Amino acid sequence: MKATVFLEPGKMAIKEMPKPELNQENEAIIRVVRASVCGSDLWWYRGISKKEPGSAAGHEAIGIVEEVAEGVTNVQPGDFVIVPFTHGCGECEACLAGFDGDCLSDTSGSTGYQAEYIRYRNANWGLVKIPGKPEDYSDDMLNSFVTLADVMATGYHAAVSAEVKEGDTVVVIGDGAVGLCGVIGAKLLGASKIIAMSRHEDRQQLALTFGATDIIAARGEEAIAEVMKLTGAGADAVLECVGTQQAVETAVKVGRPGAVVGRVGVPHVDELDTNALFYRNIGLRGGIAAVTTHDRASLLEAVLSNKIEPGKVFTQQFELDQVQAAYEAMDERKAIKSLLVM
Amino acid sequence: MKATVFLEPGKMAIKEMPKPELNQENEAIIRVVRASVCGSDLWWYRGISKKEPGSAAGHEAIGIVEEVAEGVTNVQPGDFVIVPFTHGCGECEACLAGFDGDCLSDTSGSTGYQAEYIRYRNANWGLVKIPGKPEDYSDDMLNSFVTLADVMATGYHAAVSAEVKEGDTVVVIGDGAVGLCGVIGAKLLGASKIIAMSRHEDRQQLALTFGATDIIAARGEEAIAEVMKLTGAGADAVLECVGTQQAVETAVKVGRPGAVVGRVGVPHVDELDTNALFYRNIGLRGGIAAVTTHDRASLLEAVLSNKIEPGKVFTQQFELDQVQAAYEAMDERKAIKSLLVM
Repeated sequence: MKATVFLEPGKMAIKEMPKPELNQENEAIIRVVRASVCGSDLWWYRGISKKEPGSAAGHEAIGIVEEVAEGVTNVQPGDFVIVPFTHGCGECEACLAGFDGDCLSDTSGSTGYQAEYIRYRNANWGLVKIPGKPEDYSDDMLNSFVTLADVMATGYHAAVSAEVKEGDTVVVIGDGAVGLCGVIGAKLLGASKIIAMSRHEDRQQLALTFGATDIIAARGEEAIAEVMKLTGAGADAVLECVGTQQAVETAVKVGRPGAVVGRVGVPHVDELDTNALFYRNIGLRGGIAAVTTHDRASLLEAVLSNKIEPGKVFTQQFELDQVQAAYEAMDERKAIKSLLVM
Repeated sequence: MKATVFLEPGKMAIKEMPKPELNQENEAIIRVVRASVCGSDLWWYRGISKKEPGSAAGHEAIGIVEEVAEGVTNVQPGDFVIVPFTHGCGECEACLAGFDGDCLSDTSGSTGYQAEYIRYRNANWGLVKIPGKPEDYSDDMLNSFVTLADVMATGYHAAVSAEVKEGDTVVVIGDGAVGLCGVIGAKLLGASKIIAMSRHEDRQQLALTFGATDIIAARGEEAIAEVMKLTGAGADAVLECVGTQQAVETAVKVGRPGAVVGRVGVPHVDELDTNALFYRNIGLRGGIAAVTTHDRASLLEAVLSNKIEPGKVFTQQFELDQVQAAYEAMDERKAIKSLLVM
């Protein structure tokens, strides 16, 4: 089969690899229908974080179950499924508490998703069944399904972690695909005012399409002042979808007393004055998204009923053979997010 | 009138002072019935934090309203009231959101509570009316009312901030009066297993009386291991009622993935690895208690109905003239908390 491998920073390739086989119980082999490139893939694509040269890539996909191992009864060959980047077992304390992104079982054994086939671990509970077959759906809806493997569930996790409620004023920091999905998540939870921080016009437009009511293009202290002008004493909830020191520092300053910052940006924070949070009762929550939990609880239904259209984050589409171009488009900010169609 | 003043670390005194007068709108003059010494008073009593020599002391009391200024309509002379350490205006964004401990209005103008009379700012909304007169109640219940000015509301704030729910397993760090009230708060919110960290036998006993189901006497890594033995993957919620570096570090490690640490210990934390919180979805919330909000929402009713008896934290009682002894008893850990009866 064809699979994407990482050669060195800035260089991806398609290689012919053996089709993955079942190795142990609770696995499934899935034929990929669509996959995508994640903003977090850019960390190692850009050489900022490390990745083994020659290793497989990708962790967002939808596909058809081809084969299942012992212990897998919830899905069967022929099922159309979302393949989450997480691997919840559904039985440990973390999964039972609704945090399957922190599953405490052995979650190793999956292969890269930017490929023709995937081996997926903890298939019995982790995979999310989509009714019917790919042919039953429009391209737009298929694209939205792909976002339920990570980016939409992650944006929604930011909103859930920030405890967004009906009628809230919400600030969303970050205008990448995750931040844009955070806007969708905030709206889905009932926010009535959504302030998106963005300085790129295409992303501002998409934020407005997704439900943002206000755009702030400034950063740092200037951005904080603008939020205060729009909100009075600060937002009821803050979604931090970047992870840098500046983004987290801004996030904890734009909430009103008692606000919670929900963060999903993989954090690169050296120092945060947590004493200062105390004096304004600012909360800090969030982490790795609970993909299967969120998809089953609300996101899949919201996509199926056309309530949300997160697939719009895919502004460019590629065939698997064009994977290098798919990465380049995101790296050069020509695409908000790159789709791979098999 | 007689009032407590701070002379220097380790030395308190009663001085004859002019009875406070109304200075501005929204104030009340209150004749103190009972007051108390707070664990936070020990910070400056011990010389660890600074306090102006000759300045008045105390921020926990109950009393009778004697006089009210313009703008005060919710209470009137003769009313029996809890005098919170906080001064919520009831109208700003913080108060409206339920965080009156972070009131955004001008809250200055109150005098020290360890005195025969208090001038209290933001009297219209901030004071909490108790039905009837002091003579209608037992000593035990009067003592419980005193705790609603701070310590019980603060312990409860830890439990609310930690988002304790029915059936939760909860760890309470700190066996001072606040931690013990945290145990009461966790039980009030429905926790079914409450693990109190304490190494003093009298406090362990009181924790058990208040609803603790397990006691851990160890600290640091050993304590974390004991929590894991009792809970499997960690507690559903953690109450941090100390504020030291070690206490906060322990708190963020004893929760299961997705647990929230509710902290009310005035923080003295140099550095906290907030990136590590992310990878386990550990939340950090809390701050200055919302005293008026919590008292009105549930605590006063819980005391009146004998559902909770936080007054038991007062293990020693003094007259106002004995204020030095009241401080010494707490400083030397002979009293869990010292009561002052006028």
